[in-house]
Amino acid sequence: MGEVDILISGGTILTLDENETKIEDGALAIKGDTISAFGSSKEIELLYSGEKTINARGCLVMPGIVNGHTHAAMTCFRGLADDLELMNWLNNYIFPAEAKNVNEELVYWGSLLACAEMIRSGTTTFCDMYIFEDETAKAAKKAGMRCLLGEVLFDFPSPNSQSPAEGLDYTKRLIETWEADPLVNIVVEPHSLYTCSPSLLRDSKALAENYGVPLATHLLENRGEVEQLHDRLGKKATLFLRDMGLLDDHFIAFHCVCMDDEDIKLFAEHGSKIVHNPESNMKLASGVAPVTRMLDHGVPVGLGTDGCASNNNLDMMQEMDAAAKLHKVFTMDPTVMDAKTVLKMATAEGSRALGMESEIGILRQGMKADIVIVDLNQPHLTPMYDEYSTLVYAANGSDVRDSIINGRIVMENRELLTINEKQAMDKVNDISERVKRGMVPE
Amino acid sequence: MGEVDILISGGTILTLDENETKIEDGALAIKGDTISAFGSSKEIELLYSGEKTINARGCLVMPGIVNGHTHAAMTCFRGLADDLELMNWLNNYIFPAEAKNVNEELVYWGSLLACAEMIRSGTTTFCDMYIFEDETAKAAKKAGMRCLLGEVLFDFPSPNSQSPAEGLDYTKRLIETWEADPLVNIVVEPHSLYTCSPSLLRDSKALAENYGVPLATHLLENRGEVEQLHDRLGKKATLFLRDMGLLDDHFIAFHCVCMDDEDIKLFAEHGSKIVHNPESNMKLASGVAPVTRMLDHGVPVGLGTDGCASNNNLDMMQEMDAAAKLHKVFTMDPTVMDAKTVLKMATAEGSRALGMESEIGILRQGMKADIVIVDLNQPHLTPMYDEYSTLVYAANGSDVRDSIINGRIVMENRELLTINEKQAMDKVNDISERVKRGMVPE
Repeated sequence: MGEVDILISGGTILTLDENETKIEDGALAIKGDTISAFGSSKEIELLYSGEKTINARGCLVMPGIVNGHTHAAMTCFRGLADDLELMNWLNNYIFPAEAKNVNEELVYWGSLLACAEMIRSGTTTFCDMYIFEDETAKAAKKAGMRCLLGEVLFDFPSPNSQSPAEGLDYTKRLIETWEADPLVNIVVEPHSLYTCSPSLLRDSKALAENYGVPLATHLLENRGEVEQLHDRLGKKATLFLRDMGLLDDHFIAFHCVCMDDEDIKLFAEHGSKIVHNPESNMKLASGVAPVTRMLDHGVPVGLGTDGCASNNNLDMMQEMDAAAKLHKVFTMDPTVMDAKTVLKMATAEGSRALGMESEIGILRQGMKADIVIVDLNQPHLTPMYDEYSTLVYAANGSDVRDSIINGRIVMENRELLTINEKQAMDKVNDISERVKRGMVPE
Repeated sequence: MGEVDILISGGTILTLDENETKIEDGALAIKGDTISAFGSSKEIELLYSGEKTINARGCLVMPGIVNGHTHAAMTCFRGLADDLELMNWLNNYIFPAEAKNVNEELVYWGSLLACAEMIRSGTTTFCDMYIFEDETAKAAKKAGMRCLLGEVLFDFPSPNSQSPAEGLDYTKRLIETWEADPLVNIVVEPHSLYTCSPSLLRDSKALAENYGVPLATHLLENRGEVEQLHDRLGKKATLFLRDMGLLDDHFIAFHCVCMDDEDIKLFAEHGSKIVHNPESNMKLASGVAPVTRMLDHGVPVGLGTDGCASNNNLDMMQEMDAAAKLHKVFTMDPTVMDAKTVLKMATAEGSRALGMESEIGILRQGMKADIVIVDLNQPHLTPMYDEYSTLVYAANGSDVRDSIINGRIVMENRELLTINEKQAMDKVNDISERVKRGMVPE
């Protein structure tokens, strides 16, 4: 009988693989950081004994959720300013609050709090863009979360760098520092086409190619940006990206609200990826991304929450629900964005969008053991006709009972094992008091 | 010093009254079924001692949430059929499942499970329409929930009545049976203008007037209904309602997705009320109700989840989030449907929409003690800049810690005190097995 580290037994396993394999009364064996086997409980329990066993009877066992785009440290600004016109929100609240307050301490504790919230709601991997990202990497490492993150780059100074060159240099150091880390992965992240010169974009691409890491940016988030870019670039943004050599299968674009079929086809032809952020796009009235057409063209589309200042939580279960419903009413077709499609955007397709599909996103022998267990034994998840539908339309993040990342149990029975939650909340509350004192009255 | 039954102390009280009174470190005293006083903890603790005290430090204390439109017993069909075209969904799944399975047992246990879910997510009052509603009334009574409910009436037979006359008679008995009940209120509920003849509508109105109860119906839920009604009635539905004498301040309409300004003005002129169901309207691709224009015209608009077959949960916290975000992106204006407006739709305005504003919806001396306590001490609700924003955009139903209805504690520290949850889940699971066996394969 094989010895494994963890044996999860008795739950319904949703692998989310290409056959949508589902195993009722299933078991899954984890050795080290890897899924070593799965099958019926009867079969797996005969073959393996686990040093640690988890009883998942009455639960769903599924791949950890991938939050494809966020700004983790912005938990510190959650609810600071809402229901405002975009430029008023940015220029009079968010940017001044960031300029005055963002430092290494804020980013570390804000990111750690975000990790606590993400683990509690089923996310095991997140893709992040912010300032002082080495602190976010340290927080993720502390939390035991998998991540793909990069320092935000733009033409103007940030609290962490005086120039684009300093930002690129910081990114280079991030890549080298975290190169061998099993959890932390780095991406080069110019902020957007409207805040980065062609030369910064070129240097970003050179850095990414040199180290073989992806490049990601905000793109076409709203109508104003489309017009601004057309004036600035003299052509459509996607054609500009293609001509600059940025569009390839290492390119990830966040938002992509204002894309026409030509833009989508360009992405499809070049193997580029998109992360959709429905709740943020709704809350900021940015618009509705043409996700169903992106999927029709075979573009990998992941799902993300965006930062807490424009959502205002990091609950990917709620994000799935919003994504499914938004596109149904937007297209006036209730059959689009069915529960399976949306659950995949948050797992298998989400990992493809980040270029991590060889490691995570589905449950299969040899994949990294990033697994969450959802407790079905609750009034709002009763009865059970369809697991996909239950997860997307009825569940919320608080229904996640256990979480395992890279073979390590990070939450058990709703208790976080890697983070001192109270300390993280206290620190962020202290930071928020400073932020409040620094706010200019309206 | 005055003796009271319950003293809630130390929390931040959101009264949601017309001045949006907020009391930090506040206390609230309950005697019998009524709020007898509230103010600062210091002041109230000097004046009153409570037989039972609830420590609400680190919590929000707010009016219980009003779910303005649901079909409680449909928890039994949660997730049975999703992502389908409306008529396929109704005619091939929901109607056959109902015709085969709906009986008194299903309605009682489905409704009791719904009450468990609603209490757990902060709802203290719900407005219900279904079949065998006396069972829903009994379930609400058992759960200790406040409700306004009615038997669905239409021209064709239901599992509970062979004719419209039988349905009206059942409704009359409901009114008489529950007349003196402190929690259960009855409404006359013809299903819709496309399933009820003018004569049934006229008889419904006469019954409602005779007993002084409101009349409620589904109205203008999608484009198809608008066209069908215009053909059938020879005029606009709202003009037909006015000409029939149905439009008055005892008239409540559910959905109202397809309303133009003339329709809205008619409602405003007659004091009629609307309940908005954003998640159901999104999921069924019915469309987006012009809620901001309804509010501009002063029409009372409440918020509801609709039934579990088209949502698929009864979580009003998530419904608030969806409502706020949907209308921002639909109008392309991030300032509309701000957090306060939406929270009021789920409380103070929700009670107005149901004609219950003299009893519930705000916290004030003399109002019924329907109160929920939300636990803020959680990563996804940290930090705190604005309570309204936190409730609407960051919280979910699972954050509700305690619930008091009509002066009775029905949930304490997430434990339900009135319902045997396990029994309700077991019963509904058994019922769902019967439903599955009876489904014709696709």
